[in-house]
Amino acid sequence: MKLLEDRIRKDGVVKPGNILKVDSFLNHQMDVELFNKMGEEFKRLYADAPITKILTIEASGIGIACIAAQHFHVPVVFAKKSQSVNLDGEMYTAKIESFTHKRTYDVIVAKKFISPDDHILIIDDFLANGCACLGLIDIIRSAGATVEGVGIAVEKGFQKGGELIRKQGIRVESLAIIERMDDVTGEITFRS
Amino acid sequence: MKLLEDRIRKDGVVKPGNILKVDSFLNHQMDVELFNKMGEEFKRLYADAPITKILTIEASGIGIACIAAQHFHVPVVFAKKSQSVNLDGEMYTAKIESFTHKRTYDVIVAKKFISPDDHILIIDDFLANGCACLGLIDIIRSAGATVEGVGIAVEKGFQKGGELIRKQGIRVESLAIIERMDDVTGEITFRS
Repeated sequence: MKLLEDRIRKDGVVKPGNILKVDSFLNHQMDVELFNKMGEEFKRLYADAPITKILTIEASGIGIACIAAQHFHVPVVFAKKSQSVNLDGEMYTAKIESFTHKRTYDVIVAKKFISPDDHILIIDDFLANGCACLGLIDIIRSAGATVEGVGIAVEKGFQKGGELIRKQGIRVESLAIIERMDDVTGEITFRS
Repeated sequence: MKLLEDRIRKDGVVKPGNILKVDSFLNHQMDVELFNKMGEEFKRLYADAPITKILTIEASGIGIACIAAQHFHVPVVFAKKSQSVNLDGEMYTAKIESFTHKRTYDVIVAKKFISPDDHILIIDDFLANGCACLGLIDIIRSAGATVEGVGIAVEKGFQKGGELIRKQGIRVESLAIIERMDDVTGEITFRS
């Protein structure tokens, strides 16, 4: 998606350790007009899929997922990263490892919000090693629901997550795929 | 806002300990069509305010804030609850106590995302003891920016947060204010 690639080139900052900071428009400050264009694009890409629900993970996936959901006219469920006193009842859990936070944690979705009839689109801001996304796929499968696909804002094409998920036969649509980036020159090369 | 009150009566569940579960439409599963009506209402209430930015806090404020922001045509910034490796540079911090999670934590906003010229609307899903909101107000004042007001989905009118903030002369608009609720009968009484 050219609009997103242009924005990443303009406002993204490459840091050592394969970190791309896009916090001025994607995951700390959020440009909701851009999110709306991204939502339109996810809808165009998944126009043929009978999606009943969007699943994301707190925190930075939530904004993109909610605005995208307006184009699909379905509710959003976000997986929670730790158990809170308000989240009782039975729940699905998966263990995931965070690239950003360098730790492992549980993600939780209340069972009542995913049924075997659901056809689910996973939406998240980043796809890197794929752990978050694989955790959500596990949860959807535990519920007996259908994974219709994955919609990602920025995929780090040089990490293994995208390949791992596509190898499972799951459709992954990333609006921008980074082939490589250079923290010295700041250059970002997208997969065409 | 009658639409939200009706939805709380229909789908909200009162639990012991003054807990109101609205996780089927507000803060775990999210009804984005309802959020859009709530965003319209926040815009109607704050039509006269020169808002340049919406500030919220992860995780459950983000969806409401992003969809409301579409009506204000401004970006959203969400305060983060713990420092991540991706959030470098200078930042504003405030200590807040979570009613839900029964613990104290730091919230963080990168300094570059709030300037003295900003007129900020705080949006969150719940207002109870007011700690999260007071933390965000502190952060806005530290930046020398203007707090235009607070927009809340559900205020627990029997807890002290709303009064504390209004006493500071800050405008608080809550779409539903709960006067009392009964975990035995399940009855919820709204402030009229």
